[in-house]
Amino acid sequence: MAASFAIPDLIVKKRNGHALTTEEIKYFIQEVVNGGIQQCQLGAMLMAMYLKGLTDEEIVCLTREMMNSGDVLGPWPKEWKGKVVDKHSTGGVGDKVSLILAPALAACGMKVPMVSGRGLGHTGGTLDKLESIPGFTVSVSNEKMEEILQEVGCCIVGQTKQLVPADKEMYRVRDVTGTVDNLGLIAGSIISKKVAEQLDALVLDVKFGVGAFIQDKVQSRVLAQKMVTIGKGLGVKTSALLTDMNNPIGKKIGNALEVAESIDCLHGNGPRDLEDLVLKLGGQLLFLSGNAPSAEAGEVKLKETLNNGSAAKKFEDMIIAQGADPEKAKVLCDKNADVWSVLPKAKFMTPVKSQKTGFVTAIQSRACAECSLKLGAGRQAFTDPINYAVGLEVCVDIGDEIKEGDPWIKVHHDCDVIPDVIKSKLMESIDIQPTRPTNILSTRVSEVIS
Amino acid sequence: MAASFAIPDLIVKKRNGHALTTEEIKYFIQEVVNGGIQQCQLGAMLMAMYLKGLTDEEIVCLTREMMNSGDVLGPWPKEWKGKVVDKHSTGGVGDKVSLILAPALAACGMKVPMVSGRGLGHTGGTLDKLESIPGFTVSVSNEKMEEILQEVGCCIVGQTKQLVPADKEMYRVRDVTGTVDNLGLIAGSIISKKVAEQLDALVLDVKFGVGAFIQDKVQSRVLAQKMVTIGKGLGVKTSALLTDMNNPIGKKIGNALEVAESIDCLHGNGPRDLEDLVLKLGGQLLFLSGNAPSAEAGEVKLKETLNNGSAAKKFEDMIIAQGADPEKAKVLCDKNADVWSVLPKAKFMTPVKSQKTGFVTAIQSRACAECSLKLGAGRQAFTDPINYAVGLEVCVDIGDEIKEGDPWIKVHHDCDVIPDVIKSKLMESIDIQPTRPTNILSTRVSEVIS
Repeated sequence: MAASFAIPDLIVKKRNGHALTTEEIKYFIQEVVNGGIQQCQLGAMLMAMYLKGLTDEEIVCLTREMMNSGDVLGPWPKEWKGKVVDKHSTGGVGDKVSLILAPALAACGMKVPMVSGRGLGHTGGTLDKLESIPGFTVSVSNEKMEEILQEVGCCIVGQTKQLVPADKEMYRVRDVTGTVDNLGLIAGSIISKKVAEQLDALVLDVKFGVGAFIQDKVQSRVLAQKMVTIGKGLGVKTSALLTDMNNPIGKKIGNALEVAESIDCLHGNGPRDLEDLVLKLGGQLLFLSGNAPSAEAGEVKLKETLNNGSAAKKFEDMIIAQGADPEKAKVLCDKNADVWSVLPKAKFMTPVKSQKTGFVTAIQSRACAECSLKLGAGRQAFTDPINYAVGLEVCVDIGDEIKEGDPWIKVHHDCDVIPDVIKSKLMESIDIQPTRPTNILSTRVSEVIS
Repeated sequence: MAASFAIPDLIVKKRNGHALTTEEIKYFIQEVVNGGIQQCQLGAMLMAMYLKGLTDEEIVCLTREMMNSGDVLGPWPKEWKGKVVDKHSTGGVGDKVSLILAPALAACGMKVPMVSGRGLGHTGGTLDKLESIPGFTVSVSNEKMEEILQEVGCCIVGQTKQLVPADKEMYRVRDVTGTVDNLGLIAGSIISKKVAEQLDALVLDVKFGVGAFIQDKVQSRVLAQKMVTIGKGLGVKTSALLTDMNNPIGKKIGNALEVAESIDCLHGNGPRDLEDLVLKLGGQLLFLSGNAPSAEAGEVKLKETLNNGSAAKKFEDMIIAQGADPEKAKVLCDKNADVWSVLPKAKFMTPVKSQKTGFVTAIQSRACAECSLKLGAGRQAFTDPINYAVGLEVCVDIGDEIKEGDPWIKVHHDCDVIPDVIKSKLMESIDIQPTRPTNILSTRVSEVIS
């Protein structure tokens, strides 16, 4: 039988800055799930945790108990041993990596049971992007999921109600009690959902920069380290890449636009920075899981799946398995077909012109994301509807020379005229300087933490 | 119109250690009362206040808003100006000061609208003690209260539901979230109820020692200082006495027993330490309110009311006004009558004998209180019934010589046999040493804080 405690005693212990034991954390999470803890007590405990901190041991334990608070995926078939992998990103602008990485890994023989999320605020959600494909569904039962993984090797699905219910309840309370931005609690929340997938290896894409959830690089590094510690503590081979999120990833922002760009990338024709990020993250996973002798060797293996069409074929199979019409999926994934005969297209496309002559030194990803959100591509509240067709298409690279009057970004919109607030924000999102920048990034990946 | 804020923003501000503004605290308290704040938010805010502290300005403001959250007494008739006074004690063992002080002050022409509390745990409640008088009621409407104050000059009543509802709600949450023992929150809670009486002067009896709520003298001093600051900040002349609560006050512990001892004291025949405490607290009030040229002069004035029977008469009038039968009240307050013909008496009285020969150096008030509680004189939970008759009667003074086999305490009980757990606890509550103690207190009052 599990040990029993008085909740006020546990709160006082944490309030006084002491570490809670495994049994105490287990009891606390159990009471969160079964409602034995009062709401005011949960608020007080989270504030005490926020202000007094949690040791690595406490966070590992908290994460394990959150994971165990509901259903977990698997157990997976024995023959998948060493092949079940996934990636998690802390959220970026134009981040369509999952759409490419999952099928590319599947094409390497891996199993990718990717449970993903929806967009809220300035960052888009992988599920929303995929739902711009007609017929595609993110609601997949656990049985169906295993079937897809068996036949295709990857799937990208939504979180069921029974996955980590303790995390859901704690996040709901953190959201209204000023206790969201605590790195320990953030790390626990993220990893609890990923370890519930019963992975062999996990790679984390931890963003920093203007478009990131945590802009400060030092803080991002701390978060990455905590997540790696927790992942390893729960028996999953884990590493994290710290990646630059100042400029948008790739050229396209918006749901259907990002699917289109992902398909280009799956055919080996994606923007350089996007492909680089996909390969670096995937290379890590192949190495971590023992399916490549090094991360670099893993990258080469993945690159091949983009060049030989096998990744694109996995994507086609996956979307068919998740409800897309096979004929339409074939068109969508054909290297030479017009994706816009399948994907929703905005009524209007308006280029925005540069007001200066010089060299592009930065494209502010957050400002771009906010414009895309205002166009209708995202949601401010979870119940807001989404317009899959609208978005932005950046036409320049950092370092490009540009003349006053040259179009630098295309706005895909359904409203007759682009609202002034969006126009003026876009004009502020490009930085043009008289001299060519010298510090152009060759890769977004700044550090590997393992 | 009052300013409006987002509760999570206020929590974050306090979480980050910043002081809340008057408007912010006003809004917070308003939302506590009207339910606009979620329970989890209240828990988180109280924990943030607990851990980050509150400035004196914040506590004064919080206390004012708690007071204003419900009904306040008064406004009192103009002719009472400068005469409305009260005392509050942080709770002691055998503390029946209110029963003597209120009528003695009334006999000096003061108005004492004393709103008092019930006992919980080891300390008894003034209301419970008074309810051992047949017919006495603590439920008095505000109109009736003013009438009694007009005619008698004092009353001792219970708190109505509409007095400081914000404090009630906050205390309820603090009680289960490990945020009770914060001196700022304690001070605010106490003073909010007292300032709601619309006083001219307030004296605080802040206990320290084994029988006190806060045992440490340094902490008691901090609490006293905070309460004086708040009282003054809200326009009430306030001072505090730091008083020793190691040994029980007077000789008797238990509801009816304490009423009997109070009546002795009202006739000028009380135990020396009890009378001293009554006079010191009352002297302060007469001085503070401008009704005596010094605290010492106030003490002399009060002592007279004990000697000339006027205080005892006020007590008689008060209990009649609050429902006691006039005939019985007369008997109870007659200097020579047998109070036990009116008050409930326990079936048995058993003396407990000393196991040692020597000098009495201490009587542990908390242990005595716990025995009295176990006999049935108090309650562990607010719904527990009370036995008004049972209790303890200490037969020795600190410094007395005692022989093995001499009775040192009398147990008044209704159970046939005193349970062993009480007997053994009582044996541990007296300290007997071979030499006479040299540090016998001449007064319990250790410091005056004003």
